Amino acid sequence: MAGNAWGTLFRFTTFGESHGPAIGCVVDGAPPGMLLDESDIQPWLDKRRPGQSRFTTQRREPDRVRILSGVFEGHTTGTPIGLVIENQDARSNDYSDIAHAFRPGHADYTYWKKYGRRDWRGGGRASARETAMRVAAGAIARKGLDFVLGRPVVIRGAVIQMGPHAIDRARWDWDEVARNPFFCPDAQAAKDWEPYLESIRKQGSSIGAVVEVEALGVPAGLGEPVYDKLDADLAKAMMGINAVKGVEIGAGFGAAALRGEENADAMRMAQGQVAFLSNNAGGILGGISTGQPIVLRLALKPTSSILIPQKTVNDEGQELELSTTGRHDPCVGIRAVPVAEAMLATTLLDHLLRQRGQCGNLPA
Amino acid sequence: MAGNAWGTLFRFTTFGESHGPAIGCVVDGAPPGMLLDESDIQPWLDKRRPGQSRFTTQRREPDRVRILSGVFEGHTTGTPIGLVIENQDARSNDYSDIAHAFRPGHADYTYWKKYGRRDWRGGGRASARETAMRVAAGAIARKGLDFVLGRPVVIRGAVIQMGPHAIDRARWDWDEVARNPFFCPDAQAAKDWEPYLESIRKQGSSIGAVVEVEALGVPAGLGEPVYDKLDADLAKAMMGINAVKGVEIGAGFGAAALRGEENADAMRMAQGQVAFLSNNAGGILGGISTGQPIVLRLALKPTSSILIPQKTVNDEGQELELSTTGRHDPCVGIRAVPVAEAMLATTLLDHLLRQRGQCGNLPA
Amino acid sequence: MAGNAWGTLFRFTTFGESHGPAIGCVVDGAPPGMLLDESDIQPWLDKRRPGQSRFTTQRREPDRVRILSGVFEGHTTGTPIGLVIENQDARSNDYSDIAHAFRPGHADYTYWKKYGRRDWRGGGRASARETAMRVAAGAIARKGLDFVLGRPVVIRGAVIQMGPHAIDRARWDWDEVARNPFFCPDAQAAKDWEPYLESIRKQGSSIGAVVEVEALGVPAGLGEPVYDKLDADLAKAMMGINAVKGVEIGAGFGAAALRGEENADAMRMAQGQVAFLSNNAGGILGGISTGQPIVLRLALKPTSSILIPQKTVNDEGQELELSTTGRHDPCVGIRAVPVAEAMLATTLLDHLLRQRGQCGNLPA
Amino acid sequence: MAGNAWGTLFRFTTFGESHGPAIGCVVDGAPPGMLLDESDIQPWLDKRRPGQSRFTTQRREPDRVRILSGVFEGHTTGTPIGLVIENQDARSNDYSDIAHAFRPGHADYTYWKKYGRRDWRGGGRASARETAMRVAAGAIARKGLDFVLGRPVVIRGAVIQMGPHAIDRARWDWDEVARNPFFCPDAQAAKDWEPYLESIRKQGSSIGAVVEVEALGVPAGLGEPVYDKLDADLAKAMMGINAVKGVEIGAGFGAAALRGEENADAMRMAQGQVAFLSNNAGGILGGISTGQPIVLRLALKPTSSILIPQKTVNDEGQELELSTTGRHDPCVGIRAVPVAEAMLATTLLDHLLRQRGQCGNLPA
Repeated sequence: MAGNAWGTLFRFTTFGESHGPAIGCVVDGAPPGMLLDESDIQPWLDKRRPGQSRFTTQRREPDRVRILSGVFEGHTTGTPIGLVIENQDARSNDYSDIAHAFRPGHADYTYWKKYGRRDWRGGGRASARETAMRVAAGAIARKGLDFVLGRPVVIRGAVIQMGPHAIDRARWDWDEVARNPFFCPDAQAAKDWEPYLESIRKQGSSIGAVVEVEALGVPAGLGEPVYDKLDADLAKAMMGINAVKGVEIGAGFGAAALRGEENADAMRMAQGQVAFLSNNAGGILGGISTGQPIVLRLALKPTSSILIPQKTVNDEGQELELSTTGRHDPCVGIRAVPVAEAMLATTLLDHLLRQRGQCGNLPA
Repeated sequence: MAGNAWGTLFRFTTFGESHGPAIGCVVDGAPPGMLLDESDIQPWLDKRRPGQSRFTTQRREPDRVRILSGVFEGHTTGTPIGLVIENQDARSNDYSDIAHAFRPGHADYTYWKKYGRRDWRGGGRASARETAMRVAAGAIARKGLDFVLGRPVVIRGAVIQMGPHAIDRARWDWDEVARNPFFCPDAQAAKDWEPYLESIRKQGSSIGAVVEVEALGVPAGLGEPVYDKLDADLAKAMMGINAVKGVEIGAGFGAAALRGEENADAMRMAQGQVAFLSNNAGGILGGISTGQPIVLRLALKPTSSILIPQKTVNDEGQELELSTTGRHDPCVGIRAVPVAEAMLATTLLDHLLRQRGQCGNLPA
Repeated sequence: MAGNAWGTLFRFTTFGESHGPAIGCVVDGAPPGMLLDESDIQPWLDKRRPGQSRFTTQRREPDRVRILSGVFEGHTTGTPIGLVIENQDARSNDYSDIAHAFRPGHADYTYWKKYGRRDWRGGGRASARETAMRVAAGAIARKGLDFVLGRPVVIRGAVIQMGPHAIDRARWDWDEVARNPFFCPDAQAAKDWEPYLESIRKQGSSIGAVVEVEALGVPAGLGEPVYDKLDADLAKAMMGINAVKGVEIGAGFGAAALRGEENADAMRMAQGQVAFLSNNAGGILGGISTGQPIVLRLALKPTSSILIPQKTVNDEGQELELSTTGRHDPCVGIRAVPVAEAMLATTLLDHLLRQRGQCGNLPA
Repeated sequence: MAGNAWGTLFRFTTFGESHGPAIGCVVDGAPPGMLLDESDIQPWLDKRRPGQSRFTTQRREPDRVRILSGVFEGHTTGTPIGLVIENQDARSNDYSDIAHAFRPGHADYTYWKKYGRRDWRGGGRASARETAMRVAAGAIARKGLDFVLGRPVVIRGAVIQMGPHAIDRARWDWDEVARNPFFCPDAQAAKDWEPYLESIRKQGSSIGAVVEVEALGVPAGLGEPVYDKLDADLAKAMMGINAVKGVEIGAGFGAAALRGEENADAMRMAQGQVAFLSNNAGGILGGISTGQPIVLRLALKPTSSILIPQKTVNDEGQELELSTTGRHDPCVGIRAVPVAEAMLATTLLDHLLRQRGQCGNLPA
């Protein structure tokens, strides 16, 4: 209720500040009997980890996760899984000039209004550092999906637009995503973005991005109408990621310009199964999965921490100019990819367990 | 957990099918001591009510709401408010041809996969008829916001794009919204949309739309980081409205193309208060309200029920062509306006009560 | 969150005051595909219904339940089931003398302190009339248990002590329960209680009671440690019934006087199954069902509405003497039996669905 | 939903097994602005800590708690408080003989049925070791109650019966509780219990107990009717403590034998306030606090781990005799006192925040 947990049957609760002693979470409701150890989680954390290219923050955090409970003789037991990552490279002094001033675009002002005080070191709880725990929980959810369904569910994402520069979807290549520092599926775009983002970074500025994530192999029937629709929960999951300002599914905002006969995905039979001839729905109808790929896009604003001075005020009502030093990503959209994937995974597993509980069936 | 409720401290649970005996809801957690009777709810229902122009379904429903509990001597008592609307103009026979066939773009197929059976009359539970209860709960939430804050909160919405035709924001006039059948704030656009939508309707087709809603007078400090952010909850609220495929806040998808110094809203002091010089944030930073107007946009797909025949299958795996007769809105985006307003109101009241409970303060 | 709902995956939310227009509830999460109509619910309501003997209130309520949604072609669809009972024999004037005075032992004072106002007609929301909806939800839960498990679960209860007069357990006969107005399983005790309770009633007084309920055929494995233990949830369910002041399971308070070797239920094998040699646990170990009968006892205080004058105060701080006229049960413990059975049924179904969702298995 | 959390607005989620690397919890919703450091929590943990007398388990655990988040510059910030205690004296080998056998009276069999596997080291998750985290959360809740109310709330408990030997309430002395190893308020009883329990211990047996807890200074108005009544939530809180088999409030089971005029607590005015002339209600009417002391009693069964051999079976269906070695409390009732106090504190704070959120007032 105080907002630090996600999910219902599969539910994780996180804690920790950017520059506190540690961050961590409790993952409750993971299916019992799954093989699990730290090596299942660490690779996903490494993907999100800061300091890996000059396009992400230079903070050096090994992000070494430790499982404290819920696993016995190599298998999950059904009891809560405690996870902790000790913070290493916390340099609170970098932030002392914002102890009283509110950085524009950040949560400094709103935390202060809400709670009457705030941990100003690196954004405290509002820092994207918290998303490491989403990625950790997502790693467990990925395993849970495969375990419960008995077949692989593929969850993957990519940056499809950086600033005003969109990829060419005709050049989409999923293998390309791992080859460039942008999670970009278009090799040519990745090449173009490199000098572009380098220039932004050198100017002390930042830029927004659009991310696309998808899930393949999700059974039909997941989602609880009418208020816990699968797309509604996914919209919440994505909008809750730091810096996200928009979410769309399938045809998304483009659907507004379509006619009924253009938009509705026709159905035919193929190999004895219902087959859709298009996927404007993005894999969800009436809030329930159709069995098609689930496809979401999210818009991220530019990083608010920039060197360019900005007009602001402090907690004593004085006006001032503020330029944010410290270590920051010039484009937060990049590191949002593994986070969005993780939130997609956790939300799907939660709805899978709900469906199994509620209706007792897991349609193909 | 089965998905038919919204909110936490202010929470409503709805029931009812499009062509069943009645629809209704239980509103739990309304502040005690408010003046309330049916006349506070009915005008908002009338705004959403079908059959009011040729641009909405011709089903004739008086939508007369009855308060069954929770009010005594004209005031709310703090106990749950039961609301019921009896269905009147149910013509199930209109739908007998879809008893076994799945209408493309509708939830017919997914309900069948999820539950193993479905009430096919008029879409059953997936019908937009259910949204009448959101509007009723929203009417109570509007009163609750004003009552708790001791000052008016303005919540209003408009259609800003129909199909490919957007309004001119320079001509925006809130008074105009009530004067045309489209909730359109641009008189010229409304005039243009009339023959356009008439032509769509006559062709037996339909078209999508974009809706904008805003809330004025919301105090700073509402929203629970990091998973129940106010914008995350609003994204869920909006994506959960029938036919919505995208949601954005403030600069939204446009933020992806902005630089840090363009996007972050600068702050100055004005009359002793913090004043933002722009509102790209849409009134929410770090998931918590800033005190600025909260501004959201949602994209709605075209009505899936159209006369133009569509390829589909039935529950025995046979392929067929289906044209949907019955009574339908050519643009569901129009009647989504009061629903989106209602969801904005209920979500804000819920977060207001949570903030009061959690932190004990209601900052101005 | 405002406290008018019970359960998680199987969840019902009730509304209604004793002398308002109607009482009702929404049952969310009933398994889809069950046969259900009003005749499945009405007999259980009739069992709880007032006015059936001189030992229950003389208020005449037919308690005719109406299903408003969630059932189609005779089967549940998985969507919420709306239920309403219109109030008939409401005589609010009986209560006008307590509009401002607080009846001792009742919730009058506490509702007034909590909400600042209260519906004083017949106890308003705090009236045991609300429990009719628990019984209705319980009727659906009974069907759900049998439907999900594919075999009957027996849930039954009895009054085992009236005032200081306990039954002789050696004479226990479940068939006897339906033959006397006390739900008493001991024919001799029932005979003795009749003049005893008649005398209490004529003196304008009332008396407490102890009720025992049990469930047979519950599979092992239900219950979520460590805070949503099955026995913990059942304790809450029972303590939440009007007038209940104590709950125990299995050996209960008697367990305090036992030694370890007397208390722990030994296990042997029988027909290839684990068989317990005793049931001090009451069917639950570590918060999880063992497969044995689940056995609970609850203590109910005497009805607080009595003709004998009592010292109290009013909402203006004046002291006065109050004797409660109106129509009341001399022993509320009697009509608590079907309510306790209903809460046992709803809690078990909820945990059955949770277990199926969480672990995917329903052990025998 | 998987059962490892307690509370709503003030909510904590625990993790950890008896012999795993660590136990811990996340406390979400603590009021912001409170002074808090480890020294506020440690004394309460020390009170529950094992190995302090020969009447509690000889396991040596320093139970040193570490705050990982949620506190900045000495004050709570409103963000979640992560707490961890590393396990030190884990001797899993003590338990290898129960890797496959089910200890009677323990959760071994039920965990195995529920999850299909179990961490058998020292009871794993079902061990009372988990309750250390309840005590830690309770320490924060105690501070929260005082902080929100601006005055002290006293929460305290005592063992009032050991085996068949009850205290003499006429000799009740709260100061005595800290002077003997039994938390016994009757000096004479404590003296008598010493040889009694020593004899039980030497026989390799164990014994049950009854604990009483109370809260003084709780305002009227806390509790959410009709399903989240304060007494219902407290019954759940207490029944969820390891080994508890019964819970009662106020007159409790004794109320069954009372008449209406004996049971209902009369009201008079005193110093301009409503004053009750007795407290059979135990401080709660209609599920809402009256402002009187809240008084609960809980019955605990004898420790199930005893040296005396017991009949049981193993997970291969073989019958065997089992005597539980390892280190155990001869009377678990003793160390249940700080746990019951903690659960009382956390439940009260949760309802205090809910009342503030829901109704906006905190009546005296």
